[in-house]
Amino acid sequence: MADYGVDVLGLSVGADLPYFTGYEAMPLERLTMLVVPRDADATLVVPKLEAPRVVEHPEVFSILPWSETENPVEIVAKLAGSANNIAIGNQTWAMFLVQLIRQMPGTRFSEAGEITTALRSIKDPAEIEALRAAGAAVDRIATELQAGRIPLVGRTEADVSADLSRRIIAEGHDRVNFAIVASGPNAASPHHHAGPRVIQPDEVVLCDFGGTMFPEPGSPGYCSDITRCVYTGEIPAEFCELYDVLFEAQASSVAAATVGTSCQDVDRAGRQVIADAGYGDFFIHRTGHGIGVEEHEDPYIVEGNETALVPGHAFSVEPGIYVPDRWGARLEDILVAAAPGPDAMNTVDHHLHTVEA
Amino acid sequence: MADYGVDVLGLSVGADLPYFTGYEAMPLERLTMLVVPRDADATLVVPKLEAPRVVEHPEVFSILPWSETENPVEIVAKLAGSANNIAIGNQTWAMFLVQLIRQMPGTRFSEAGEITTALRSIKDPAEIEALRAAGAAVDRIATELQAGRIPLVGRTEADVSADLSRRIIAEGHDRVNFAIVASGPNAASPHHHAGPRVIQPDEVVLCDFGGTMFPEPGSPGYCSDITRCVYTGEIPAEFCELYDVLFEAQASSVAAATVGTSCQDVDRAGRQVIADAGYGDFFIHRTGHGIGVEEHEDPYIVEGNETALVPGHAFSVEPGIYVPDRWGARLEDILVAAAPGPDAMNTVDHHLHTVEA
Repeated sequence: MADYGVDVLGLSVGADLPYFTGYEAMPLERLTMLVVPRDADATLVVPKLEAPRVVEHPEVFSILPWSETENPVEIVAKLAGSANNIAIGNQTWAMFLVQLIRQMPGTRFSEAGEITTALRSIKDPAEIEALRAAGAAVDRIATELQAGRIPLVGRTEADVSADLSRRIIAEGHDRVNFAIVASGPNAASPHHHAGPRVIQPDEVVLCDFGGTMFPEPGSPGYCSDITRCVYTGEIPAEFCELYDVLFEAQASSVAAATVGTSCQDVDRAGRQVIADAGYGDFFIHRTGHGIGVEEHEDPYIVEGNETALVPGHAFSVEPGIYVPDRWGARLEDILVAAAPGPDAMNTVDHHLHTVEA
Repeated sequence: MADYGVDVLGLSVGADLPYFTGYEAMPLERLTMLVVPRDADATLVVPKLEAPRVVEHPEVFSILPWSETENPVEIVAKLAGSANNIAIGNQTWAMFLVQLIRQMPGTRFSEAGEITTALRSIKDPAEIEALRAAGAAVDRIATELQAGRIPLVGRTEADVSADLSRRIIAEGHDRVNFAIVASGPNAASPHHHAGPRVIQPDEVVLCDFGGTMFPEPGSPGYCSDITRCVYTGEIPAEFCELYDVLFEAQASSVAAATVGTSCQDVDRAGRQVIADAGYGDFFIHRTGHGIGVEEHEDPYIVEGNETALVPGHAFSVEPGIYVPDRWGARLEDILVAAAPGPDAMNTVDHHLHTVEA
């Protein structure tokens, strides 16, 4: 906080609060906020009816419950005192920030993420093992998918998504974060919402799924995230060619992800392969995102991010090629940067498998 | 917007955006924002990779996709132009508001909720039917619970919560919002997180659950929310007495919820019953919340809210009595205010049922 000139940190919904305290705020209209003055003790301002949920850590913070007829923003403003710069948790609801600005018109507000990311983005060995366990769980599901043991043809995308969600829990996650199932032309939409489309023979099915696994109750959970594509029939030569380019691009970015390399250079390595093959206009997103207690966090593997990888940085490498109205593919692993070279949290086969209709 | 002196409305994550456009923003670090100038056309600023998800409504808004190396906050600031007062969606991530303040230092920011609630809190007949369908679905689950057809004793709270979640989907919801299962002393924690505790014979089990049901794809979904308690054995006289008070309190607030009555008077009606019986200190939350496309929205049934009910206001009536470390109970229905009297979305029996161990 001193480095960033921040007098008070205010953390609400989002991953920072559980990361530092073990307590996850409910994403509701009643404000929960951990108020951390730079030179005083931390206080968790929490709705009275949710106070019994909080596992107390008196050495970390004290609890200040507010009742239904009190104004929690006034309580936070009082705790913040005469702070000049308050850093607010990135995902805090804007309505609370608007109210706080009204209470403290002379105060400057900044992003708490600038401070917390420095603490969260580099994983220690226990965090890496938590990511590895979550990665192994989704790998088992991807193995079933590639072996054709998750029925696809004749089911809707939504059905298959629900099936993947059940498997995410069955394999040991505590929470399903997403289960994208995009078939045929829908695979050209990177964040497609699995819907009523019935999966047909002879098309690509892109599956991108992940969840959160809590190593132990009351400690923060860690996320998985994997993408594999399968083809429900013989793969046309044109799609083989596209997938080969994608395969090579992903491998190139993975190989580039060594300690000391900048995030944008990891992005560029795979992007160059795709551009050289003439698919540049069809790779419409960054190569990856950091991962930990959140599915998406620093470091982002994107052009313009000159952050150099250090041991413990955990992130996805997931190039994609999307041909609108036709088809698409993405290939994704989670990696952890390490001195000997990138440590893969996902080791399931990277090839495009044909599954029987 | 004119009534509130607002020049530009900026809607991001949360329920306002799907309510007005049918499109739900992904709650991620890439900004989606519908920018609505008071005197010009609306623009949906959306990440390029999510643009294919948007169902276009050119008569409502145009789409402005941004690519990974652009700054979406700069794009929003440019669209907002020289606005003096920008109303920001209540649940917008604070980091985007902090960035917008930096881009537009002279601008005043206010809560979009002040404007949107006036449009959202009064439900039209189609919305009431959507709430009724969702209510009937959770009523069917509560009926099974009261009949003892959802096994409780010997299972963990988390197991029963997962069972309720499956049933919420099986009964026609598209999304599970929560499934609180609080047994024995845990029932004294109003927002208890269903955990590893194994449910025992001869104790109360409080179940509070709900989901979102979409009447049709691309239109906003509507929420259910119900609480019923059951007892896994013969009910002790002392708990009978507590529940009788709760039953009477809930009925009193329901009876008070007529058109023209203020929200705080609905709260007071039941609260008085509980206070008169000597349990006043154990009713630690407001009586209820509005419900619609969000589980919690205006109008809140709470002391200090002098809003008078009008036909179409939809809200919960859910008093509770919580004796710390011992037991607790809550009883909840969703009502819609109507000229002939409150219209109940939940009609399942309100008594405390004994279920076999």
